[in-house]
Amino acid sequence: MSETMKAAIFVEPGRMAVEEVPKARLEADTDAVVRMVRTCVCGSDLWYFRGLSPHERHAQIGHEGIGVVEEVGSAVTSVKPGDFVILPFPYSCGVCPVCKAGFESSCPHGGYFGSNQAEYVRVPQTDGTIVKIPGKPEDYDDATLASLLTISDVMSTGYHAAASAEVKPGDTAVVMGDGAVGLCGVLSAKMRGATQIIAMSRHEDRAAVAREFGATDIVAERDQAAIDKVLAMTDGYGADAVLECVGSKQSFDTAMGLVRAGGVIGRVGLPHYAEISAEGTFGRNIGVKGGPAPVRHYDLHAGLLDAVLNHEINPGRVFTGEYDLDHIQEAYEDMDARKVIKSLIRF
Amino acid sequence: MSETMKAAIFVEPGRMAVEEVPKARLEADTDAVVRMVRTCVCGSDLWYFRGLSPHERHAQIGHEGIGVVEEVGSAVTSVKPGDFVILPFPYSCGVCPVCKAGFESSCPHGGYFGSNQAEYVRVPQTDGTIVKIPGKPEDYDDATLASLLTISDVMSTGYHAAASAEVKPGDTAVVMGDGAVGLCGVLSAKMRGATQIIAMSRHEDRAAVAREFGATDIVAERDQAAIDKVLAMTDGYGADAVLECVGSKQSFDTAMGLVRAGGVIGRVGLPHYAEISAEGTFGRNIGVKGGPAPVRHYDLHAGLLDAVLNHEINPGRVFTGEYDLDHIQEAYEDMDARKVIKSLIRF
Repeated sequence: MSETMKAAIFVEPGRMAVEEVPKARLEADTDAVVRMVRTCVCGSDLWYFRGLSPHERHAQIGHEGIGVVEEVGSAVTSVKPGDFVILPFPYSCGVCPVCKAGFESSCPHGGYFGSNQAEYVRVPQTDGTIVKIPGKPEDYDDATLASLLTISDVMSTGYHAAASAEVKPGDTAVVMGDGAVGLCGVLSAKMRGATQIIAMSRHEDRAAVAREFGATDIVAERDQAAIDKVLAMTDGYGADAVLECVGSKQSFDTAMGLVRAGGVIGRVGLPHYAEISAEGTFGRNIGVKGGPAPVRHYDLHAGLLDAVLNHEINPGRVFTGEYDLDHIQEAYEDMDARKVIKSLIRF
Repeated sequence: MSETMKAAIFVEPGRMAVEEVPKARLEADTDAVVRMVRTCVCGSDLWYFRGLSPHERHAQIGHEGIGVVEEVGSAVTSVKPGDFVILPFPYSCGVCPVCKAGFESSCPHGGYFGSNQAEYVRVPQTDGTIVKIPGKPEDYDDATLASLLTISDVMSTGYHAAASAEVKPGDTAVVMGDGAVGLCGVLSAKMRGATQIIAMSRHEDRAAVAREFGATDIVAERDQAAIDKVLAMTDGYGADAVLECVGSKQSFDTAMGLVRAGGVIGRVGLPHYAEISAEGTFGRNIGVKGGPAPVRHYDLHAGLLDAVLNHEINPGRVFTGEYDLDHIQEAYEDMDARKVIKSLIRF
């Protein structure tokens, strides 16, 4: 009988379970198997949990994580069993022009993890995907482990919003969305030197983290009222950079209304809107960039891993609830009900 | 009786005239009046001439030009009568955050010239708009005057396509459109260090200028055939940067098909399409930037004026027909019929 492992199962919208399933194993010589140390629930998982986006029923789920390499295929050269690693939510070949340009998350040979809320995970294309962490999990305290976990997705995604929006020193940046990605967007805008950071938030716990991460102003208004407020704060010109970390039509429309002419909207929320106005963006020279975050690129080449290891940033603060895998239903429910900002799963 | 001047008049689609109209004069203390030395016909003027875009009938037209300052308002400090100048097609305050960010063409206090095909032109907001050229028109030969004329619009617009597409050294760039802007886009991609420059052209005279400007490859195909050809030339990955210098839906769709994941489409053709797919651009991390070109910014801060004065670039090569103002109908007709690439008007 083959080995088994515990895994979270998406049963149907609103209902998670934990089951014994076949243990993740090597399928190709470029694969690795990683024993998970921490995983978490993503805002995008909630779209499925809420029934707003389709997801296969009675199937594994999850795409974030850090862990320890258990086993590697014969072609893997970058890591060995026992190594402590980050699993970026996209997997990628690491060598094609798209990866070399720093867009591993859109690698045409890659894809996305989808079964990381489990004890073990199979990593495809290991050498092009994985990011090694110095030492062992035992070398780090819980807060640092939480921050390392964020650079498998949420912090890297916030950083992608800031980089896509071309935030530069001295900028005024607006961050749409006070979920974990938006909060990490605030931290990223700060890292890139924005001096005025306006966080859109109407939840006190989130606004508090936003302030801790560098937000200079909190705007609780929405739609036209939010636009009016930001325009009033920027002498009527709008913000140099907008980090769109929601993905709704409402949020994108608001972003369009408060961005300065010549500014860029960096968007990282999977778009739940069909179109961007070709004319509305043209006359005002509004740029639109973004997509799934190239996690590995930012971890290694924008200094996110070093910044976490040196305690310059503490993005793990977005985890305000901790659960074991057996309490996965509660982890989803609490995040769905906004009782917690983001749910961490310990093994 | 007030003084008069000769001016081109847009009578109706397909029909231009030359008439005596009241001479341009100062209306505000920040105005200047410029005696035109060269102007020209823009691809966007042809949209009106062809009846594809609305334009007031029996009205002045034109937005490009170089000339000599005739008179200045009392608040003007940057130029004096006798100075030789470029008139960027947008006018702008020059001091607001939008202008300071390098987007004078979207200055909320500015606008666009619209009566430059005339002997004299009124310049609003002179100090924030005008670009001074050293010396006098007599100091320059015809070829240099033609090149100086291009940096009032068409060369700066081509440069905006390249800058918006983020062309950088070593890139493969595709230029959509073989009109004067597209050809200047080729030259701009070359200036920014692209090593493979694929020009889309099916007209031998234009392809010849494209090659002279730095195009390494010419693609005559359109639509899916063009996409297939560019993909074949880039190992299936697509181009790092696409300069969309047409503005049609067909052209933008083709641009989307041949841009590399993570690449940027720089667009400068006034969009004759309604929307950009929010999802189609997201998964592949396709950026879309561009709009009306900040001419003054590129002339002064991207080195276009110096490059022309030092004869490093000769964008004036796009003028393959020369006319006097009395032959304005012919200047439009020849360009409309593609007998010439772009029509220059001498005074």
